[in-house]
Amino acid sequence: MRILAIREKTVPLASSLRNANIGFGAMTASALVVATDAVREGKPVNGLAFDSIGRYGHGGLLRERFIPRLLAAKPEDYADARGDNIDPAKLWAIAMQDEKPGGHGERPGALGLIDAAAWDIVAKLEGKPLWRVLAERFGADGMAPDGTVAVYASGGHYRPSGDLDGLKDEIRRYVDLGHMRIKIKIGGAPLAADLKRVEAALAILGTGSALALDCNGTFDRARAFEYLDALAPYGLAWLEEPVDPLDFELHRELAATTPMPLATGENIFSVADARNLLRHGGLRPARDWLQMDISLSYGIVEYLRMLEVMAAHGWSRRRALPHAGHLLALHAAAGLGLGGHESAPDPTHLIGGFPDGVSVEHGTVRAPEDPGVGIERKANLYAVFRDLLD
Amino acid sequence: MRILAIREKTVPLASSLRNANIGFGAMTASALVVATDAVREGKPVNGLAFDSIGRYGHGGLLRERFIPRLLAAKPEDYADARGDNIDPAKLWAIAMQDEKPGGHGERPGALGLIDAAAWDIVAKLEGKPLWRVLAERFGADGMAPDGTVAVYASGGHYRPSGDLDGLKDEIRRYVDLGHMRIKIKIGGAPLAADLKRVEAALAILGTGSALALDCNGTFDRARAFEYLDALAPYGLAWLEEPVDPLDFELHRELAATTPMPLATGENIFSVADARNLLRHGGLRPARDWLQMDISLSYGIVEYLRMLEVMAAHGWSRRRALPHAGHLLALHAAAGLGLGGHESAPDPTHLIGGFPDGVSVEHGTVRAPEDPGVGIERKANLYAVFRDLLD
Repeated sequence: MRILAIREKTVPLASSLRNANIGFGAMTASALVVATDAVREGKPVNGLAFDSIGRYGHGGLLRERFIPRLLAAKPEDYADARGDNIDPAKLWAIAMQDEKPGGHGERPGALGLIDAAAWDIVAKLEGKPLWRVLAERFGADGMAPDGTVAVYASGGHYRPSGDLDGLKDEIRRYVDLGHMRIKIKIGGAPLAADLKRVEAALAILGTGSALALDCNGTFDRARAFEYLDALAPYGLAWLEEPVDPLDFELHRELAATTPMPLATGENIFSVADARNLLRHGGLRPARDWLQMDISLSYGIVEYLRMLEVMAAHGWSRRRALPHAGHLLALHAAAGLGLGGHESAPDPTHLIGGFPDGVSVEHGTVRAPEDPGVGIERKANLYAVFRDLLD
Repeated sequence: MRILAIREKTVPLASSLRNANIGFGAMTASALVVATDAVREGKPVNGLAFDSIGRYGHGGLLRERFIPRLLAAKPEDYADARGDNIDPAKLWAIAMQDEKPGGHGERPGALGLIDAAAWDIVAKLEGKPLWRVLAERFGADGMAPDGTVAVYASGGHYRPSGDLDGLKDEIRRYVDLGHMRIKIKIGGAPLAADLKRVEAALAILGTGSALALDCNGTFDRARAFEYLDALAPYGLAWLEEPVDPLDFELHRELAATTPMPLATGENIFSVADARNLLRHGGLRPARDWLQMDISLSYGIVEYLRMLEVMAAHGWSRRRALPHAGHLLALHAAAGLGLGGHESAPDPTHLIGGFPDGVSVEHGTVRAPEDPGVGIERKANLYAVFRDLLD
């Protein structure tokens, strides 16, 4: 099994959306193909990977550092023990040679793409969906996974006009799609206006436990406590990224103050940083949620290390809710027994949706059975790869 | 004052050197030019910046995200209050728009180049060396800077053959150049072999306080304590990066155990991460050293924030020893009253040396008086920029 070529391109994910922190007008993502000399059912086996969202594409780093290292490696250096498939951990180590410790920013996202393509190849060569491969190798004890995953709908961005009516329409659409838990944005408006958004959402959802709020890391200490107080009566599912994701001490203060579940981690991109969050952030394993983005955090090879650190700190995998709604996260949630999956329920988007034919029922989806990650089964996303596959 | 163009290129810094962690055979750095419509003495004013070393060039990120944002900005958005120079903090904020919090890895190095070019322009338009501009704006209270900076020589990498003799020759060369404190690498060999390197160095230097040791972040807990014990008798200047730069808890344990000065920070790239190091790392303001690399950490705009956080935690600027030996760090050390400057004393290198004509005397240099950062005064480095300056 030999890697023949690695191709990537940068894809615009531009939208007019805003959260409390950034606009998405110039957002991009990377598509990556790892072409191999393996053949299944008469066709060459390619590993496909598509980025997460929010931290831009990773083409520059892939071209400058990681693709050259992989192409310079010998096939025996990344072969698994039997010699007929890739060992993703070995491929990961090759990509990371001559990289210094610390500084986990863009590099983890570039590695995440390589890792995802490697796992796509592994699963395709085993003739199984990735979630089954992950369950067999790394499944939670006593778990007999059936591919079902709890999902929540993520949206509720600010609109330039008609914000409340648009928000209500959007939530009704998610409910009609089968969603039972919905996350909306706050923190981009004054508190009084944000409370109107919360109440508009609750007018449709009925119960606070069906609603989560995402602050996108913008509050200072005073505003965070102001929002904690004002939101306390609603019995919300969780409050996400109230403050800077690296201010562990402030997380500890918030968690010591509020009974409201907190969620964070989508801007924590390594096991070293995740360990610090668990050591110093004062989060509560029976109440809070950890949302590290698997694709932006060095991929599944590193995410398995994160799950070990979580276990060592008393956290169940069921408290893991990975960020962003890419297909890699769907397989990880189904195969590793995580707490759920984020979904941005617009099938015209490249990420945030599901393979064609997969639908939400009572807040749950069933991961697909096609071999690999299944990018080929999501038509609009697969179309992006056409010129990388020739 | 308008930015007309921004040009960058990637420069190989390949060498056969190794530390305990990585090889430098494929190391690169970025050169950046910010061309303006300002004219001084009949010549256009350009801001020049050259990278630090160890984390590779930043060309991909500069081209993908940061240069387009700067070129799209209006001159009034980055003008200073008088309107005739750049405000580096405003330029910095333009570059960082639509960037999420957390994830301080490669992005800080790209911003550091932009920041350095901005300060080069500021100082050239004021007709002063950057260190004087920094001293006037942000100098330590009561300090009357004369441009002198304590420097130390950084080298002592492992050699494939003749390691001990080569090490001794190298140290003699540094002493002959005027250096009084020298740092060598350890941790890339077994303890017994490393102790021979330490004793070879001390045989020339005479006293432990003239010798610092750099472990490059590779030790696990057990090996770190083993080295602390073995090195305790030597009275060394400091032990640098014994363990993973993000394992704050392990730093706390080490600092609680040993009287030996510790040094770290070169792989901490933001004020958020530096704050966590100071909060959770247990380092001792009267004994230890902070080595954040100004160029790799979002530049001087962010470094000033780091100095504020250091002050809030009881740290004098004199405990700051910035990493890597680039000219930006030399000016910051001289102008901001930092504890010293790292130097890799080989004038054929692009970084680590001084502008031509600057020499070390009794472990001290005097920063140059030419306007700006003075890349033009280091001939081999300036040659790299020729094709960026058309």
